[in-house]
Amino acid sequence: MKTLNIAGISGSLRAQSYNTSLLRAVERYAPEYGMHVDSVDIGSLPLFNEDSERTLPAAVAIFKEKIKGADGVLFITPEYNYSISGSLKNAIEWGTRPHADNSFDGKPAGIMSVSTGILGGVRAQYHLRQILVSPDVYPMNYPEVMVGLAKEKFDEAGELVDKKTQERVKEFLKEFSVWVRRFQ
Amino acid sequence: MKTLNIAGISGSLRAQSYNTSLLRAVERYAPEYGMHVDSVDIGSLPLFNEDSERTLPAAVAIFKEKIKGADGVLFITPEYNYSISGSLKNAIEWGTRPHADNSFDGKPAGIMSVSTGILGGVRAQYHLRQILVSPDVYPMNYPEVMVGLAKEKFDEAGELVDKKTQERVKEFLKEFSVWVRRFQ
Amino acid sequence: MKTLNIAGISGSLRAQSYNTSLLRAVERYAPEYGMHVDSVDIGSLPLFNEDSERTLPAAVAIFKEKIKGADGVLFITPEYNYSISGSLKNAIEWGTRPHADNSFDGKPAGIMSVSTGILGGVRAQYHLRQILVSPDVYPMNYPEVMVGLAKEKFDEAGELVDKKTQERVKEFLKEFSVWVRRFQ
Amino acid sequence: MKTLNIAGISGSLRAQSYNTSLLRAVERYAPEYGMHVDSVDIGSLPLFNEDSERTLPAAVAIFKEKIKGADGVLFITPEYNYSISGSLKNAIEWGTRPHADNSFDGKPAGIMSVSTGILGGVRAQYHLRQILVSPDVYPMNYPEVMVGLAKEKFDEAGELVDKKTQERVKEFLKEFSVWVRRFQ
Repeated sequence: MKTLNIAGISGSLRAQSYNTSLLRAVERYAPEYGMHVDSVDIGSLPLFNEDSERTLPAAVAIFKEKIKGADGVLFITPEYNYSISGSLKNAIEWGTRPHADNSFDGKPAGIMSVSTGILGGVRAQYHLRQILVSPDVYPMNYPEVMVGLAKEKFDEAGELVDKKTQERVKEFLKEFSVWVRRFQ
Repeated sequence: MKTLNIAGISGSLRAQSYNTSLLRAVERYAPEYGMHVDSVDIGSLPLFNEDSERTLPAAVAIFKEKIKGADGVLFITPEYNYSISGSLKNAIEWGTRPHADNSFDGKPAGIMSVSTGILGGVRAQYHLRQILVSPDVYPMNYPEVMVGLAKEKFDEAGELVDKKTQERVKEFLKEFSVWVRRFQ
Repeated sequence: MKTLNIAGISGSLRAQSYNTSLLRAVERYAPEYGMHVDSVDIGSLPLFNEDSERTLPAAVAIFKEKIKGADGVLFITPEYNYSISGSLKNAIEWGTRPHADNSFDGKPAGIMSVSTGILGGVRAQYHLRQILVSPDVYPMNYPEVMVGLAKEKFDEAGELVDKKTQERVKEFLKEFSVWVRRFQ
Repeated sequence: MKTLNIAGISGSLRAQSYNTSLLRAVERYAPEYGMHVDSVDIGSLPLFNEDSERTLPAAVAIFKEKIKGADGVLFITPEYNYSISGSLKNAIEWGTRPHADNSFDGKPAGIMSVSTGILGGVRAQYHLRQILVSPDVYPMNYPEVMVGLAKEKFDEAGELVDKKTQERVKEFLKEFSVWVRRFQ
């Protein structure tokens, strides 16, 4: 079976971000499930402006090509003010514009979230689901992964050390590979 | 009665933005309702990054001061991918961080939206309402202003020329001034 | 190709409901797209009460069997107070309970909405999408059908007479049959 | 100071409901904060049907009078399928209809939720907030009360025994009395 090419996006720009740390763990686990996860930078994208649609900034063009080339997209999002981060929303906007060049068009997706609080970023997930209807993206439903109390789950080097969360993430990846393959 | 100081934010960065055009109209109408609307730029803010919280970028510091000094905040948002723009979300993040320095804390707010489609940006409004619970902001409920079919409502110079929309916006401002005064 | 069996649910109980009228039109159009739509009554269901889960009321048992026997589910919902109707929410609860007997489990779905206002019930659709994640239902993304200004689209006998809406609904059904078949 | 009259609604119909148990605790705590909480039954309301608006069923008329007579409304909602219960949504519909007789009009509100899972019903709260914009209801923002892991917080008789939750609820009631008084 062909290895699936997954674009992985962390919605947090913080250097020691738990969301980015989870993406690192996912990159390591993915090959076991027939997937290669390529992390896509969103921190160098300018703020979206329709006036720039005709001649896309270089960082945007690179971002769009990575999304287009992927078999599926994995979003790992923090929850900022009860929604996804502005930087993740901004990246989705560039990905879907101009209208005739929607890089996300029809792709399957997965959503995970991480927070230091108990709720694990749950409020961000359903905003993201509403947003993804627009570019015709199809997020998997289950298992849902909301990693709460992140400080107890990752060590100081950003390694995911909590066994239960490791298993949950692997279960997610197993189902995600099936989900993405349905869209091949 | 004291003139109310309102921070006005357009969520679109496009030079000819209909949302920004509506903000211009609001600036002109506001004095009649005892308010001065000061438009606040969000296009020069960097993407939010918690690592920059300790020494805030200059543009962020200016943005936060303007919000803090306002008696109320007026959001005029486009709908991008069924939600508010990433640039507006990004601005709200800076406004609410660091946690001990929430510039929006307890303020009354108003929400309007503009789109070229028939729905007038309605999907963005309820995402914004959920987001605003987090920084303890209180948006007015009625009248709701969703300006659809913007190309028919503004002329080529960006002037709001549709009489019905003008009246609706003025009705909004009248109620908004009452709403903001309740929080004084 | 096998005719697909679709459970059709109108979320409005009003005798002359525009939502139910649209469901009638869909029933007539469906065979052309290889589907048979069987309308499922939700008006005789009692209010959901977990205490009644062990010995299900007769109307509930019938409802659940109809959903289970369907290849896909078509929801046609009014917008009451910016969300789906309580009666539709109530039906979904019975359908998903008890937990070990989720009648909706894994099914594909379609969503349409009708309202007399200009917005066509759009606010109800995204609440329904969030709700449907829970029972692992997969709603199609496009085309989205929100029928606004219903009084102009249906005649006094409840017949869908607006040509453009007829075409839109047929386009929806064509794509919906493809969507449902993917889950066979 | 006048004792505030609060209509208290539990969104769960189960006899041993944790939500209803929390409402019982709130009834006992309320007088200390200058409020009398009167619990309002929603289990005897029929499913909402616009055809019944002209001659309201007796249970509906009683429900509407109780809401109208209240200075504020306290909603305690379970989370069913990632939203509020159908029975609570149904009650809100009756409360807001017919359009010229919106029993909730302009009232302040409070929201709490209880669940046996870790998330405490959080997904239901923001759906309820969107719904309450429609009848022009103003829910307090903070403190937010989401009681998770209910089996550990209540004893077998339905008594709220968890000290931390008791304090949190009392803190809520203290702020809620201030919030409601602002609308007097």
